[in-house]
Amino acid sequence: MIIDGTAIAAQIHEELAAQLKTLMPRRPQLVAILVGDNPASHLYVNSKVQACQKVGISSKKFLLPTTTTETELTNLIGLLNQDPEVTGILLQMPLPSHLNTLHVVNRINPAKDVDGATAYNHGKLVMGDPTALVPCTPLGIQVMLQRTGIPIEGKHVVIAGRSNIVGKPLACLLMQKGAGANATVTVVHSHTPDIGYFSRQADILVAAIGQAHYFTADRVKDGAVVIDVGQNQLPDPTHPKGKRLVGDVAYDEVKKKCSWITPVPGGVGPMTIAMLLSNTLKAFR
Amino acid sequence: MIIDGTAIAAQIHEELAAQLKTLMPRRPQLVAILVGDNPASHLYVNSKVQACQKVGISSKKFLLPTTTTETELTNLIGLLNQDPEVTGILLQMPLPSHLNTLHVVNRINPAKDVDGATAYNHGKLVMGDPTALVPCTPLGIQVMLQRTGIPIEGKHVVIAGRSNIVGKPLACLLMQKGAGANATVTVVHSHTPDIGYFSRQADILVAAIGQAHYFTADRVKDGAVVIDVGQNQLPDPTHPKGKRLVGDVAYDEVKKKCSWITPVPGGVGPMTIAMLLSNTLKAFR
Repeated sequence: MIIDGTAIAAQIHEELAAQLKTLMPRRPQLVAILVGDNPASHLYVNSKVQACQKVGISSKKFLLPTTTTETELTNLIGLLNQDPEVTGILLQMPLPSHLNTLHVVNRINPAKDVDGATAYNHGKLVMGDPTALVPCTPLGIQVMLQRTGIPIEGKHVVIAGRSNIVGKPLACLLMQKGAGANATVTVVHSHTPDIGYFSRQADILVAAIGQAHYFTADRVKDGAVVIDVGQNQLPDPTHPKGKRLVGDVAYDEVKKKCSWITPVPGGVGPMTIAMLLSNTLKAFR
Repeated sequence: MIIDGTAIAAQIHEELAAQLKTLMPRRPQLVAILVGDNPASHLYVNSKVQACQKVGISSKKFLLPTTTTETELTNLIGLLNQDPEVTGILLQMPLPSHLNTLHVVNRINPAKDVDGATAYNHGKLVMGDPTALVPCTPLGIQVMLQRTGIPIEGKHVVIAGRSNIVGKPLACLLMQKGAGANATVTVVHSHTPDIGYFSRQADILVAAIGQAHYFTADRVKDGAVVIDVGQNQLPDPTHPKGKRLVGDVAYDEVKKKCSWITPVPGGVGPMTIAMLLSNTLKAFR
């Protein structure tokens, strides 16, 4: 069975739009900052801004040149931190390599950190603090599982990948006490000698290693739930753009073996955007 | 073979004392705050203060009544945050139940949080930020393994227990990129249906669930490394105090099966104190 991230996200958008209506004429404002001209980053930011408009969140984009200095960027963040009209600040990753990402991100006021990117919100998440603003992709995965009615409590979740925006915060989220969590969590990564040994034991497998079709059927347990976070571009001359987007899971063969699977595109991606909107409303309240 | 935490900690104390001498006449100051009259907490704080004196860290104790209000406690923390003479602030846990632990802890200036208790330092740890002040017990376990020459990279570490001071930060620490980490990490806990299923797969087993002798030989893999964080009091009429301290591991039977094991007492406990001193020096620098 296919987990339809697009449909679940659309439902969340509707719910958020209804809640935002009750707060009118007040409305939250999301400010997105984009440094440099990475085309994928521009696409992501635009889809986030469009999603804001649909549900009734106002938004602004700051497009800064690749040559922006750390001082210029942190000064802008400082101004947005103080601006009472600004609810949320989203700093689109990746930053150009001359900027110290950890240093810049942590200048965002944690109360406006709707992407859950600061150390303070990561720490609140680890400690099980319900006021944390949780990173959007991990939160989207949790919500997607819950809304599909897939139990998480007591299940063995194997997370492949240990990035700061997916693997590590998702591990922290699903091992907490409470509803939608209480999972036994294993994190595997590039230094795990045999990833398949662990992934074959997963009740819920989360693939976030950035390798196209890495998880073939022999690396997945019969009846597992498979969440594919991968966003890999494969050359494909039959496609108009000459390439196509594929996940970390060999979808066609794995879907015959697992109980639930997310497609790419249309799985985790739309949930990430829905959670950005949801976090913006949480920050506003 | 037995991992002698007392000996490793003594060696670290010597190294710290030598480093502190080079900084004279400047010296760091640790302030310990203890709320209420829990006898175990008094013992812990006293042993920490004594350890400070031995290596040349000055220290102060604030002993507050159980009836201390949250405002009184956070006001004290605020004064210590501003005091340039104070290097480190240690808030001994547990706090009386009328105080909101998460709220109070996060009032400590992260730069003085030598116990690694604040959300900010937890978050830095998750994100792999080397400026993090890491919670003392997890850091002590990592250092103990490294100084014993036990490889961590690529090993499967199973951590039993998900507390904010041991299990969760240790998982975050050992799954990071870099030396003394790069482990595949599994966290099991009270909601894991069969803990033994996972603990039998551990190359390195960390027992931190607070149940005396829970890990019997049949729950440990042949040749595993076993780290026992448990501090359980068992009634024992043959002891002068009528009770004795035991770990979460059935030491006598497990030591015949594993490659390395920490005793209780004399294993993790002394390392925790050594890391408090080490963090205080790090904060001072």
